[in-house]
Amino acid sequence: MPEESPLSTVRTLKALDTTCGGRPFASVLVVKKLAAKTAANGNAFFSVDLGDRTGSFGCTVFGDSPVFEVLRGAGEGRVVRVEGKVDFYQGRLSPRLARVLVLEESELSTPGLLESLVETTPEDQEALWGELGQFIDAIQQEELRQAVRGVFEEIGDTFRWSPAAVAMHHAYRHGLLEHTVHMARAARALLPLYREVDPDLALAGILLHDTGKAIEYEGSLATRRSRRGILQGHVVLGYQLARKHGIKARLDADRLERLEHIILSHQGEPEWGAAVYAATPEAVFVSMIDNLDAKMGMVQRALRQAAETDEFSERLPGLSAQLLTRRVPQVPPPA
Amino acid sequence: MPEESPLSTVRTLKALDTTCGGRPFASVLVVKKLAAKTAANGNAFFSVDLGDRTGSFGCTVFGDSPVFEVLRGAGEGRVVRVEGKVDFYQGRLSPRLARVLVLEESELSTPGLLESLVETTPEDQEALWGELGQFIDAIQQEELRQAVRGVFEEIGDTFRWSPAAVAMHHAYRHGLLEHTVHMARAARALLPLYREVDPDLALAGILLHDTGKAIEYEGSLATRRSRRGILQGHVVLGYQLARKHGIKARLDADRLERLEHIILSHQGEPEWGAAVYAATPEAVFVSMIDNLDAKMGMVQRALRQAAETDEFSERLPGLSAQLLTRRVPQVPPPA
Amino acid sequence: MPEESPLSTVRTLKALDTTCGGRPFASVLVVKKLAAKTAANGNAFFSVDLGDRTGSFGCTVFGDSPVFEVLRGAGEGRVVRVEGKVDFYQGRLSPRLARVLVLEESELSTPGLLESLVETTPEDQEALWGELGQFIDAIQQEELRQAVRGVFEEIGDTFRWSPAAVAMHHAYRHGLLEHTVHMARAARALLPLYREVDPDLALAGILLHDTGKAIEYEGSLATRRSRRGILQGHVVLGYQLARKHGIKARLDADRLERLEHIILSHQGEPEWGAAVYAATPEAVFVSMIDNLDAKMGMVQRALRQAAETDEFSERLPGLSAQLLTRRVPQVPPPA
Amino acid sequence: MPEESPLSTVRTLKALDTTCGGRPFASVLVVKKLAAKTAANGNAFFSVDLGDRTGSFGCTVFGDSPVFEVLRGAGEGRVVRVEGKVDFYQGRLSPRLARVLVLEESELSTPGLLESLVETTPEDQEALWGELGQFIDAIQQEELRQAVRGVFEEIGDTFRWSPAAVAMHHAYRHGLLEHTVHMARAARALLPLYREVDPDLALAGILLHDTGKAIEYEGSLATRRSRRGILQGHVVLGYQLARKHGIKARLDADRLERLEHIILSHQGEPEWGAAVYAATPEAVFVSMIDNLDAKMGMVQRALRQAAETDEFSERLPGLSAQLLTRRVPQVPPPA
Amino acid sequence: MPEESPLSTVRTLKALDTTCGGRPFASVLVVKKLAAKTAANGNAFFSVDLGDRTGSFGCTVFGDSPVFEVLRGAGEGRVVRVEGKVDFYQGRLSPRLARVLVLEESELSTPGLLESLVETTPEDQEALWGELGQFIDAIQQEELRQAVRGVFEEIGDTFRWSPAAVAMHHAYRHGLLEHTVHMARAARALLPLYREVDPDLALAGILLHDTGKAIEYEGSLATRRSRRGILQGHVVLGYQLARKHGIKARLDADRLERLEHIILSHQGEPEWGAAVYAATPEAVFVSMIDNLDAKMGMVQRALRQAAETDEFSERLPGLSAQLLTRRVPQVPPPA
Amino acid sequence: MPEESPLSTVRTLKALDTTCGGRPFASVLVVKKLAAKTAANGNAFFSVDLGDRTGSFGCTVFGDSPVFEVLRGAGEGRVVRVEGKVDFYQGRLSPRLARVLVLEESELSTPGLLESLVETTPEDQEALWGELGQFIDAIQQEELRQAVRGVFEEIGDTFRWSPAAVAMHHAYRHGLLEHTVHMARAARALLPLYREVDPDLALAGILLHDTGKAIEYEGSLATRRSRRGILQGHVVLGYQLARKHGIKARLDADRLERLEHIILSHQGEPEWGAAVYAATPEAVFVSMIDNLDAKMGMVQRALRQAAETDEFSERLPGLSAQLLTRRVPQVPPPA
Repeated sequence: MPEESPLSTVRTLKALDTTCGGRPFASVLVVKKLAAKTAANGNAFFSVDLGDRTGSFGCTVFGDSPVFEVLRGAGEGRVVRVEGKVDFYQGRLSPRLARVLVLEESELSTPGLLESLVETTPEDQEALWGELGQFIDAIQQEELRQAVRGVFEEIGDTFRWSPAAVAMHHAYRHGLLEHTVHMARAARALLPLYREVDPDLALAGILLHDTGKAIEYEGSLATRRSRRGILQGHVVLGYQLARKHGIKARLDADRLERLEHIILSHQGEPEWGAAVYAATPEAVFVSMIDNLDAKMGMVQRALRQAAETDEFSERLPGLSAQLLTRRVPQVPPPA
Repeated sequence: MPEESPLSTVRTLKALDTTCGGRPFASVLVVKKLAAKTAANGNAFFSVDLGDRTGSFGCTVFGDSPVFEVLRGAGEGRVVRVEGKVDFYQGRLSPRLARVLVLEESELSTPGLLESLVETTPEDQEALWGELGQFIDAIQQEELRQAVRGVFEEIGDTFRWSPAAVAMHHAYRHGLLEHTVHMARAARALLPLYREVDPDLALAGILLHDTGKAIEYEGSLATRRSRRGILQGHVVLGYQLARKHGIKARLDADRLERLEHIILSHQGEPEWGAAVYAATPEAVFVSMIDNLDAKMGMVQRALRQAAETDEFSERLPGLSAQLLTRRVPQVPPPA
Repeated sequence: MPEESPLSTVRTLKALDTTCGGRPFASVLVVKKLAAKTAANGNAFFSVDLGDRTGSFGCTVFGDSPVFEVLRGAGEGRVVRVEGKVDFYQGRLSPRLARVLVLEESELSTPGLLESLVETTPEDQEALWGELGQFIDAIQQEELRQAVRGVFEEIGDTFRWSPAAVAMHHAYRHGLLEHTVHMARAARALLPLYREVDPDLALAGILLHDTGKAIEYEGSLATRRSRRGILQGHVVLGYQLARKHGIKARLDADRLERLEHIILSHQGEPEWGAAVYAATPEAVFVSMIDNLDAKMGMVQRALRQAAETDEFSERLPGLSAQLLTRRVPQVPPPA
Repeated sequence: MPEESPLSTVRTLKALDTTCGGRPFASVLVVKKLAAKTAANGNAFFSVDLGDRTGSFGCTVFGDSPVFEVLRGAGEGRVVRVEGKVDFYQGRLSPRLARVLVLEESELSTPGLLESLVETTPEDQEALWGELGQFIDAIQQEELRQAVRGVFEEIGDTFRWSPAAVAMHHAYRHGLLEHTVHMARAARALLPLYREVDPDLALAGILLHDTGKAIEYEGSLATRRSRRGILQGHVVLGYQLARKHGIKARLDADRLERLEHIILSHQGEPEWGAAVYAATPEAVFVSMIDNLDAKMGMVQRALRQAAETDEFSERLPGLSAQLLTRRVPQVPPPA
Repeated sequence: MPEESPLSTVRTLKALDTTCGGRPFASVLVVKKLAAKTAANGNAFFSVDLGDRTGSFGCTVFGDSPVFEVLRGAGEGRVVRVEGKVDFYQGRLSPRLARVLVLEESELSTPGLLESLVETTPEDQEALWGELGQFIDAIQQEELRQAVRGVFEEIGDTFRWSPAAVAMHHAYRHGLLEHTVHMARAARALLPLYREVDPDLALAGILLHDTGKAIEYEGSLATRRSRRGILQGHVVLGYQLARKHGIKARLDADRLERLEHIILSHQGEPEWGAAVYAATPEAVFVSMIDNLDAKMGMVQRALRQAAETDEFSERLPGLSAQLLTRRVPQVPPPA
Repeated sequence: MPEESPLSTVRTLKALDTTCGGRPFASVLVVKKLAAKTAANGNAFFSVDLGDRTGSFGCTVFGDSPVFEVLRGAGEGRVVRVEGKVDFYQGRLSPRLARVLVLEESELSTPGLLESLVETTPEDQEALWGELGQFIDAIQQEELRQAVRGVFEEIGDTFRWSPAAVAMHHAYRHGLLEHTVHMARAARALLPLYREVDPDLALAGILLHDTGKAIEYEGSLATRRSRRGILQGHVVLGYQLARKHGIKARLDADRLERLEHIILSHQGEPEWGAAVYAATPEAVFVSMIDNLDAKMGMVQRALRQAAETDEFSERLPGLSAQLLTRRVPQVPPPA
């Protein structure tokens, strides 16, 4: 990627005053939204949202701009290098784009690049991915392990990069992988305490419970619900994946039904998206661990984002509360 | 306890036909309910419910019966040996009581007696109690450990025998102890995975979170909500206990406030009884583990009660579902 | 079927006085419930519910009765001819059974027999079934029609006899068939008014929307939810049927997805069982017609059951109201 | 209407850059909101919202402007021709108005004028109005027909122009008429299938069910709830209209009560505004058709507004979903 | 009324043993329910519920009994003197009736008779009625007072005897009168504190707010919802009464609309039956006083029914709680 | 306080045009929010919100500004005199601050100053405070009066200045005092009508019911929830205050428990914040009066803020309605 001038983040650009109008800039950004519109005079134009991890802005690109065709070819979710001049429309940052260059897939591997564009897991995703594989291997029952492996062979790469949600818990790159591995760790720790739960089924259920999200969410850089996501929902999509690979692996009908049931019921209550209420020991166990790790994931993220001096976070919708982010004093103050 | 004739359970008595009217019997039963009423003719009588683990029945005792004064002296929740004759009123079992003998406290220790009267934990309650003590000892921070110890010194014995609920999860003798120890075990297993949670506070919070129930529920053999339970609720009662002993142990104000908050928020949502939403990492953690173990406790009990041949349990209100109680086949059937 | 003595209905038996104890009787009844229990003395016995269209009663059959083995062989949902003597237990009818004979499948075709055992559609089920076939034929798009036909070839007979619900609308024999045909008629009448709705998809969606119930409900004479019904729910089961036969018929992916979506969304809202909200014109249309015909089905049944002199029905839970069953006066009374 | 210069729509004006400040313009607009305020210095001024079908903007008119008195005389909901200069306040379009001319009622009939100001039914409103009359004539029962006719003689013109809602379904000019006629068509199609429904009452109920909205909503160009709408609600207002004209037409008490009941119950559930639950066959039928056509009206509007290239609409609050607006492929793609 | 033998209450009869079968008795009772049924053999019979303040029982009267025609002539809600013999059916009291005599209206005035049949207000209903008249007279504004008076001239007597509810607060004879007078007293006490509330409108609104219940409930001795009650609800019925008499009294339109609004909104929220939310100072005030007195009425009744020795009442559904009925100690016990 | 130039309100500043950029101004304002942030270049800056009763604006103060240290020293909730030049950022008012002077506590007593900064009770707060004292004195029972007095000795001054809410009823300076006195007046007026309510307990309960809010809300000029408010909630905080001073005053256990219960239950339902449902006559009475005065407080405030010419207020969330603010006509218009 050519890097002639220092790149500006969106936060830097937004901090500029209107007196800076006309100043040249260059940035690497994601095409967050690209909507084709028609002006009152009949001319086509694009309303474009460009952003990175620090924020986003909108601008308009008319049909006669050289940039127009580049954007049309790029589409939403692509990473572009843009150059142009700072400008303001109705008081808001709205740069004039002079040049847009779509980055090749290979250029995305520049160290630190993706991290600068989107929020990502704080953990080492390579290690998480390896750990996921170990959890698959830990499933004893042959056909069950094959079924789980089959699902990840089909959707693995998408799964690996997907967020666990658009707006709630683990809503960032690799978030789905992180949440799944965390749940598997929690299950491993708890299974010796709940002997009535079949360890193989519980583990397989955890690994597969959210795989439908790899299909429900689309666009690794600009997440939105896909057509299949809207029309079927991740619960049914995940169920379908498990069913397909369970049959392929010749998993016995009893286990397959129990595995499917874990996925169909893991959202807890129908109004939260479950197809049925959890009705097996494994399904109850998995849905409770899902809830636990989802809530703790919100806690972890709020703590990461908290400034040293803050006492409380902003109100977190998923907890219906502000979180006390100040740590427990190590040396107790006098009572 | 005199044991001249073999004792009948309530189930045995109820299985009798109306043709058995007049047959003598003897049973050891709990006085479940004792309501003083006045007949239309102005005479006093008792409406009495007597029961054991297998069921209960009602009968009427008039003021001129020799049994009347014995029952008045006994009151609800006492264990009595009754002798009388089988009788039926309006088709239902309604024996005539000839003799009632209140058992002394010491007589209750007869092996198997209490177990025949009320449902109890399937685990060894001595061991559970010992384990609770070890969890208290495991709290590192001196004042916090003293505070927790103080609470159990005040309410320990009641706590040890109390059910965890009147009708929902762990609703049996020692159920509160069992549920608390199970939660502590789960916390110990999970704490290494959630490093942002202060282990001492989480553990102390778990041990104390439901201690208010030892005051909310009254009567170890015939559970009902006490006056303080109705007027304050177990959340506030437990908070008060923690506060009293925290101050006594000179626990620093910061930790005390966090400990109180765990208790005030552990029910999850205000409509389920929480005073506030969980707003510290420890409070979120404890409320999630509470939910997990409560649900798993319902699963465990349903599995214990399931007959070999049953496929599903009755509908369990706490799970909104029938539970599949048939075990996973060990040798998978052909797919 | 031997018919030596006149058969008694449950209503007739229940009208008997306790003075009739010992009177012999014979009835043809359904085994509604058959629960194996163990008495306090360790002996096995059955708690049996027997019933016909006019009601049901319970009785107990001990392990040493000759009838015990016959019932064990029969199981729930079978039709039996019972002979015995009228008896009462605790004031309720509880006959002693001397002889139980399981009816063969072929004997069930005796005219009027099934109608005497369970409530059934008021319409000619042969005609309804024929009409269903015509609606299938009316689907123009070749692969779509094949997919629908495939589903009915798989589950047709069960579908034909199944109720549409355990307790709400069309909760009687052939009720599922009746409700589906009524919806198809309504769609045919409305499609010319809503031109944005694809007629083929809407019709196919209606015919298949509730087919999962043929699997969810089990036992044509004593309806209960099957294992698959509890673990997956009829929405997912119906979706699976449509998917299987759609793929088999090589239905194009776009139409298949829309067809599956109609089934997944027809319950209207997730809290009523929908997997997703209706998000295509056809899905909105079908879910609204489903709602309309379900409610009108409750109206029709209440009117059928109303006595001439009644003004209102009992409160109907599905309508949250008592229904005014008195007809509109044909000649208006003076204002 | 004088038309010296080409008129600008609001969309055109908003597309202008701040560099266009001072450019003269002329537009025909609706006075959407006119709020009298007092500045900190005690001077009166108007905060005015002006708009057309393409959008709206706010501006301020001080008491010493020649335009002030014209606006005061006009009031909300009038159509005005404005001339002025483009200006911006705090980055937003906020033109200075030099001249405001209130259009006479007669000028509003200029072809295309009203359509340019507010969204309107896509159908021919003359034809809809004629069809409504035919539905009235189709009511067989003499007094019932007279009652319905009486209501429309009282409120017809307002009804004809009114939207069916402020923000939900059919929320545009003539929307109430369109929705009512669509429901009547649906009823005509369905009545042969539901013979227990009295056709005359059902039709009369449909025609009158929403007539209260002609009173609840005020201002044909800038809709808002009227005083009577806020204090009584359209359900009670429509009931009152039906009652008044039913009595006037000497409709028999039985039919009148049933007709009133349809109106009082058509919203379905009390929490959605129904006074009582539907408790007659006709009331159940009408409330279900209302629901069907309301939802289908949202579908129809979303399809009209969809661009060729869109796959889904925005999220529609009334459907709780994005609608798939792409049509079913006529020639199926390969499976 | 002939009084040859001492009368038995239902409580007395129910206290009898099955050994008392055949004993003659006489009682004065209300016909609570009278349902015409047809036996399996085609014969007509009545299923009758008879009761007094102490309880009720059911019995069957066949078409060939001399009592059959008397009951048919009497109908539900009439007071009858019955004579017969004690009998039991299926263990429950089910007397054989030998003679039934319908009491004349004049005989109902026998002192103490009605009080023995139904629960009634603990206050002097004559005094309450007089006080209601004084509150009407206290309305200053001439037309408003005439409107209120007009309503009570139309429905006064029914209003005077009606309960305020079937099952919730003030659910007893004269309860509606008692509740209305109590609210008027509370308003008189509070009006000096809330000067923004128009006293005349508030008082008129209170007096009329529940008058629709005099039409909604039917049968002074055996309360049930009338046809108009089911089809319109007391809110709309009361609104209609106020409107009719307001117009008759030439009440100005502004006041009439505000008065109607109080009635339409007094239930608080649409889901509790309000047609609209309270939107005037008077309507907010009246709905709050209604809520206050309804809740306090439940408290008063629970205290009246509490035995000296009770600490808590049963759970009161309207309060979602058991009420502490033990009085505050007058001399405080030592702390 | 130096007053060289006339002070501008926020409303005046916001009315300025962008053409006024650079104009000098001076204002006395509250520091509503003060957030320390770090720019992309690593420099510290403050994002500051300043406001008075007429509104607020934000501006940015960089670390090298002389004003930076003054603001850091001041903190949120302090009153400052600011001088600077009018400026705009992205079209919004965003003045450059040249000088900030923190006002001393003593300067806040300048007549009219605080009133210009925050909304306050319309009543004389001195008189309200005196009246509160009289209500305390009116409690007859010695220990109860001492307990109440004790609470106000501890938190009196904070209580006196606190709002009753952040956003709902009585959400302004002294609002808590005003609401409490209004409730006490209402109780005094109603107690003679509800004789089953203990006057001393009811009065004490009212005076203390919301005292926890004096701890829950923090910052008299810029209200926000305190740490204790978030972690415990005002219900528990008030309960703790009552308990502490009740024990100190040696109040008998029975009365103390009833007093605590009033506070724990006054919010009505758990989902609105009550710890338990009201279960004593006094608790039901207090929670109803709380609800009444809260709603009437919203009415009173809407009427105060209504312009002469308004017919309705904006929609009030607490009433779910727009309020009719136009007064009842004194001379009725012709009907």
